[in-house]
Amino acid sequence: MQDVTLLKESLPYFRRFRGTTFVIKIGGEAIKDRETLTNFAEDIALISSVGIRVVIVHGGGHQISEVQEMLGIETKMVGGRRVTDEKTLDIVKMVLAGKMSVEIVAALKAQGVGAMGVSAVSAGIIEGRRRPPRKVSGGGDEIVDFGFVGDIVNADISALNLLLGNGLVPVLSPLGADSEGNIYNMNADLVASRIAAEFKAEKLLLMTAVPGVMVDLKDRTTLISQITASEARESIRKGMIAGGMIPKVEESLRALESGVKQVHILSAVEPHQLMLEIFTQSGCGTMLLP
Amino acid sequence: MQDVTLLKESLPYFRRFRGTTFVIKIGGEAIKDRETLTNFAEDIALISSVGIRVVIVHGGGHQISEVQEMLGIETKMVGGRRVTDEKTLDIVKMVLAGKMSVEIVAALKAQGVGAMGVSAVSAGIIEGRRRPPRKVSGGGDEIVDFGFVGDIVNADISALNLLLGNGLVPVLSPLGADSEGNIYNMNADLVASRIAAEFKAEKLLLMTAVPGVMVDLKDRTTLISQITASEARESIRKGMIAGGMIPKVEESLRALESGVKQVHILSAVEPHQLMLEIFTQSGCGTMLLP
Amino acid sequence: MQDVTLLKESLPYFRRFRGTTFVIKIGGEAIKDRETLTNFAEDIALISSVGIRVVIVHGGGHQISEVQEMLGIETKMVGGRRVTDEKTLDIVKMVLAGKMSVEIVAALKAQGVGAMGVSAVSAGIIEGRRRPPRKVSGGGDEIVDFGFVGDIVNADISALNLLLGNGLVPVLSPLGADSEGNIYNMNADLVASRIAAEFKAEKLLLMTAVPGVMVDLKDRTTLISQITASEARESIRKGMIAGGMIPKVEESLRALESGVKQVHILSAVEPHQLMLEIFTQSGCGTMLLP
Amino acid sequence: MQDVTLLKESLPYFRRFRGTTFVIKIGGEAIKDRETLTNFAEDIALISSVGIRVVIVHGGGHQISEVQEMLGIETKMVGGRRVTDEKTLDIVKMVLAGKMSVEIVAALKAQGVGAMGVSAVSAGIIEGRRRPPRKVSGGGDEIVDFGFVGDIVNADISALNLLLGNGLVPVLSPLGADSEGNIYNMNADLVASRIAAEFKAEKLLLMTAVPGVMVDLKDRTTLISQITASEARESIRKGMIAGGMIPKVEESLRALESGVKQVHILSAVEPHQLMLEIFTQSGCGTMLLP
Amino acid sequence: MQDVTLLKESLPYFRRFRGTTFVIKIGGEAIKDRETLTNFAEDIALISSVGIRVVIVHGGGHQISEVQEMLGIETKMVGGRRVTDEKTLDIVKMVLAGKMSVEIVAALKAQGVGAMGVSAVSAGIIEGRRRPPRKVSGGGDEIVDFGFVGDIVNADISALNLLLGNGLVPVLSPLGADSEGNIYNMNADLVASRIAAEFKAEKLLLMTAVPGVMVDLKDRTTLISQITASEARESIRKGMIAGGMIPKVEESLRALESGVKQVHILSAVEPHQLMLEIFTQSGCGTMLLP
Amino acid sequence: MQDVTLLKESLPYFRRFRGTTFVIKIGGEAIKDRETLTNFAEDIALISSVGIRVVIVHGGGHQISEVQEMLGIETKMVGGRRVTDEKTLDIVKMVLAGKMSVEIVAALKAQGVGAMGVSAVSAGIIEGRRRPPRKVSGGGDEIVDFGFVGDIVNADISALNLLLGNGLVPVLSPLGADSEGNIYNMNADLVASRIAAEFKAEKLLLMTAVPGVMVDLKDRTTLISQITASEARESIRKGMIAGGMIPKVEESLRALESGVKQVHILSAVEPHQLMLEIFTQSGCGTMLLP
Repeated sequence: MQDVTLLKESLPYFRRFRGTTFVIKIGGEAIKDRETLTNFAEDIALISSVGIRVVIVHGGGHQISEVQEMLGIETKMVGGRRVTDEKTLDIVKMVLAGKMSVEIVAALKAQGVGAMGVSAVSAGIIEGRRRPPRKVSGGGDEIVDFGFVGDIVNADISALNLLLGNGLVPVLSPLGADSEGNIYNMNADLVASRIAAEFKAEKLLLMTAVPGVMVDLKDRTTLISQITASEARESIRKGMIAGGMIPKVEESLRALESGVKQVHILSAVEPHQLMLEIFTQSGCGTMLLP
Repeated sequence: MQDVTLLKESLPYFRRFRGTTFVIKIGGEAIKDRETLTNFAEDIALISSVGIRVVIVHGGGHQISEVQEMLGIETKMVGGRRVTDEKTLDIVKMVLAGKMSVEIVAALKAQGVGAMGVSAVSAGIIEGRRRPPRKVSGGGDEIVDFGFVGDIVNADISALNLLLGNGLVPVLSPLGADSEGNIYNMNADLVASRIAAEFKAEKLLLMTAVPGVMVDLKDRTTLISQITASEARESIRKGMIAGGMIPKVEESLRALESGVKQVHILSAVEPHQLMLEIFTQSGCGTMLLP
Repeated sequence: MQDVTLLKESLPYFRRFRGTTFVIKIGGEAIKDRETLTNFAEDIALISSVGIRVVIVHGGGHQISEVQEMLGIETKMVGGRRVTDEKTLDIVKMVLAGKMSVEIVAALKAQGVGAMGVSAVSAGIIEGRRRPPRKVSGGGDEIVDFGFVGDIVNADISALNLLLGNGLVPVLSPLGADSEGNIYNMNADLVASRIAAEFKAEKLLLMTAVPGVMVDLKDRTTLISQITASEARESIRKGMIAGGMIPKVEESLRALESGVKQVHILSAVEPHQLMLEIFTQSGCGTMLLP
Repeated sequence: MQDVTLLKESLPYFRRFRGTTFVIKIGGEAIKDRETLTNFAEDIALISSVGIRVVIVHGGGHQISEVQEMLGIETKMVGGRRVTDEKTLDIVKMVLAGKMSVEIVAALKAQGVGAMGVSAVSAGIIEGRRRPPRKVSGGGDEIVDFGFVGDIVNADISALNLLLGNGLVPVLSPLGADSEGNIYNMNADLVASRIAAEFKAEKLLLMTAVPGVMVDLKDRTTLISQITASEARESIRKGMIAGGMIPKVEESLRALESGVKQVHILSAVEPHQLMLEIFTQSGCGTMLLP
Repeated sequence: MQDVTLLKESLPYFRRFRGTTFVIKIGGEAIKDRETLTNFAEDIALISSVGIRVVIVHGGGHQISEVQEMLGIETKMVGGRRVTDEKTLDIVKMVLAGKMSVEIVAALKAQGVGAMGVSAVSAGIIEGRRRPPRKVSGGGDEIVDFGFVGDIVNADISALNLLLGNGLVPVLSPLGADSEGNIYNMNADLVASRIAAEFKAEKLLLMTAVPGVMVDLKDRTTLISQITASEARESIRKGMIAGGMIPKVEESLRALESGVKQVHILSAVEPHQLMLEIFTQSGCGTMLLP
Repeated sequence: MQDVTLLKESLPYFRRFRGTTFVIKIGGEAIKDRETLTNFAEDIALISSVGIRVVIVHGGGHQISEVQEMLGIETKMVGGRRVTDEKTLDIVKMVLAGKMSVEIVAALKAQGVGAMGVSAVSAGIIEGRRRPPRKVSGGGDEIVDFGFVGDIVNADISALNLLLGNGLVPVLSPLGADSEGNIYNMNADLVASRIAAEFKAEKLLLMTAVPGVMVDLKDRTTLISQITASEARESIRKGMIAGGMIPKVEESLRALESGVKQVHILSAVEPHQLMLEIFTQSGCGTMLLP
């Protein structure tokens, strides 16, 4: 006879999260090959089948750079953001709302999940405005004009609510527009965080290239399973959380402050991390609590 | 004092069409420059502001060819359909669901219209399957493999209904997927016609490069304002409707047979043709009736 | 090809006013002949066809006096109000809720507008009480007993909301009753203003014998197109708004104070003034703003 | 201690009729003095307080004749219908929709019943057309033109349903209009019967000058308490139901044929006949069953 | 002809109480024989047929003692509460939720009333906790352990609301449970009072062995028909309300304080007391007002 | 890292059964000790947490016999049914609707499941009538009077639907009543089967003393995992299904004929059989298919 331990272990999570909203942010790495994408889609299928309302926000920086290269356009990153001229903006639109969104939706369809690819320009989801030229930290005195990079002015989740209420999983591409119809390249992490805040989401799950917050990025045994906001701040101050980990953690802390109940940082590349993190006691990544 | 004749002339149409569904198909030419796109968006704003439920289906063949050229991929058309290998499919996804959909939605936003760009892969709107290799008319004995070109297997308008019921204008990109998640390049005219049939739409409006059905394509005075299905069939038989006009008219006749109440063929490039065709007695294009 | 300028000009108003509530007060003069009534009904048809919720409040003083005369009853007006004995009250009921209401509803029906004639006695719309005998300004020391003239005690718009929510245009006759079932002759301007206040209406439109507020009633070029509440008060103080114009303007100011967003004074006799005033930039009457 | 017999006797009727629809037709006699009207209003208050949906259709022939006389207009009846020229039509509108409707609504308000006076012109309730000139039975060869007397072309009870669904009692005046907005004088009995048929009403109650169907109109002991349609037809054939009773009974039989479950004929002048007929086993008038 | 006085007298109560909620508490005595139960069910049938929402809370102390005796278990009462060991708890469950609830529901069914027997363990209606051992008044220094007697921790009326909203009469058995699933014997009076408070009930009716509050329990003429809370407190203080009457009155006062509008104390054994108390002016028991 | 195989295996069942209705019949053996009951409640918690609508029908024959014994009443079974005199009926009511129902509801509450114990007398769920005295198979010529044993006359699931629609699990006790309010002892298997048929349930799960249909009841390896209706009939004919297994299988076949999609027979005493049978490919009992 089969062992039902895992089902029994999952049961309290099924019950607790039913009807709540999770915002899941994935970068381009989660979609880099068909198998990774299929694993991800299977996890979403499970999560939504137990009645959790899922919003996916995807990125795609790596893929944008690839197309830029194919078209002979130089990739120019300043302070982590892509300087976006008109041609680059066209590529951003095409890669995000065209290639990646459609492929995620099709992969979900193959798992029986009804999804809808939606750019955040639609239905006023993200109202953006052009980022003013500015100095960047570590960039000296130079004023950088980021072009069609946008800052979030407003977010309206009513259309996402509509889709969720009808059993559809929205797959959101991080674009925005202003009231004149100008389109902007938005940051996927910030969009995910803002959307999660608007929903007062139960969880914001950030799927990244690393398995979670680690004291030593090379040593998995240093992974922190669970940490409170104040402990996290203390760890940054003490240097235990350092380097590339810091922006993700700070973004997580901001999300907690704006009403998200839990933020998770977990691996986008290892299989079924979402399932494990959400439905088992031990989890697999890092959970940040207020 | 101003003349209110036009408003009085429009009134019966406002009343008659309120709450009915129009499917409007536009090709890439309607989006070729910002002014044409703005004119189109103004028309949609008027149509939706009087309570008509509008679904837009867009094409983009010209723009796809442009990107193919930029990437050094040869455009190969057989029997009016684009042979679609894997790289071309990527471009199709990017141009349709990425560039064109986002730009139409942003232009509508600038006119105060809440729109949602949706690829027909989403929510099972268009279920497709790979077109089997086949001989094409005028192509001799050669068997043509169209690659990722899809035929429509099923259409599900429930998600579109959901958006319309909440005051949003769906902007539909003609892609489809099968149950394994394979994505296909669908024909925009056929998608528009099928969606209109599923809605038993009040009107299917096909915006084309020509002002309507003309006996002599060079002489606008030969434009036919209104024609019944049987008259149209007779005209084709007699050669009065000929050449490139025939496929559009035949598609229109099929739409009428499947329950669409009226089909219009009108110009995508002259300004405000939609407004005139829908809200004035004389109209400006060709209306086909059952 | 037809000029679509007027439609384009109207579009922003269609969009802005959709779903808002307009209260339109017409006096007996708007119904004096079939042509004027038809013009009015056409305007209402347009206004309601673009999704504006319309409540009509009608008067009928002239017609009441006519029936009084036919029955040999002397018309006695004091301070602008009709002294209403029992026989006169019967005539008031008959002319307002009988003749005028039914004729307006029938004229709207001829324009395809579903309307419902409703006396304000119905469903507790206007709760009235007998006006106490009092001195009137300019009437010396005499105490005037107005008979069955009523003052508004309470207004309940739930039944009107019900009709509006089901696409019907209420046509309200200015009668009221108290809790013992005594019926009163109410003032149509005050009823319209109170109903507009209860709805926090977008517009209260007062259709009168004059084209709007004019500095010189004989010179149409002195018509004031738009004026704020404070400017209007100043103009009255300075004598620029004078004579018969003052009560209408004061009533308008009270309506603005109680939450109505805009009040219009316009001509009941010239054709299509409603259409022009509501849907064109220049308008034709006077708009009062808070 | 009080005797609760009557309440216990009424209980099964309360339960059985809750949520069903009764159409009650009253003539002018029920409103001839304040006491009779108050008694009637008390009965309606009880009936509606136990959850029965009540539609009142009123007549007013006597009152119309009175006003005709006051205005020096000759009353001309042919075959039981009033020849209605333009002036008479004005009086009909005024007396029915003005005087009588408003007074019934006010009397109901005094009993705490929310009612709405509605002429059947409103909301397309009764679509009428002019009765063609015709010979009348017993009128020789003369062709009679009844003027603005109307025949019922169509009935639409959706607005009445709306009012009932919100706890309001519609008080319907028997006027009708055609699609050009011409207004007609309709027969109250026919309107009541048609409305009852559209509702598939549980009961149609016709309140008349007599206490019910009587074999000898002068002898109350000959009143028939209950009779089936076939018995009634037989009684007419045998001459047991005769004279002025016949049209009421025939109208009742037509109502039963069109789906009304029970028709009652009862006195409009004796107090509380409605209460007794509906809520006691013995009743007081005549009940006709299919 | 029948006298309709009682119906007319009842009418204002029908109207006033329609849609309000009554909580009726009955003890075991109301169910002691089939006739008493049938009388009670007839009263509930009338009350619910006029649109009053009824919740019944029943006790059954006498019947519990009977079964205890049959099973040779000693009944042990301390301070009015039954000491409840495990075997006794089984009997309590069986008698209340088994025997009495089912019999009341069946008796209501025989009167055409749709009822649902519900133990307060269901749907978290009553959250209980074990009463801590304590000294009882008049019990000297001994600490009494009541066993599975419960105190109310929380009440949730959403399930009762659900039943009421669908026309069902909940028949509530006074059991409760804690979050570990331990079941407790709750006091019926306290459950009724708490449920009435949660509903802000229009009336709480306590059916008891006596006809109401009496100054002299042997002399019915000393029954107090109506009394305010402050008068009642004063009467207790002065000794006019004394003995066994005090706990019922104090419970009533607490119910009034927690938002119940009126509390009635009336006889469970005389027939149709509910009908008389609710629907007649004189009533038959005692009404307590805030 | 944990193995997620079981979750992945369960996923298709979660998705497939969401929103469908399962009727689960348990006998007294499933409630015989606290641990078995807790295991059962855990399974129900999982099943309902993935959105399956669960109706539980319970029996309790063993427990009824126990109480009979305690009260010195002889248990008399004829043809598998308990002869039910008045005293026995009281015990049946008390054990089923009192003891067992309350304990199941409390055990579910401890697992976080909102449940409502409902006897099938409530809300007309099971309309019964007294079983006519009859000969029983194997009972010779004697006419047996079963007393208050009832046969099902009608079933009404609207109240169960109401509870399910609000997220509550109904726990149904197999009692019934007729329109005079007489209460009957119904057969739990037949009630479960009828309720499942009314729901056109996705599954009827019969939890029994044996692990499923076995060719040799002593040899678990002879358990039949899956069998169609025609195979089952064939197996009975051939004697492969024999003895006490036959009535369960025949009841299952009747359920399949009346529209239930799948019937399962599985063990009530081994832990977590429900979980395994429903959510794993191999299952653990016997599934019968049409």
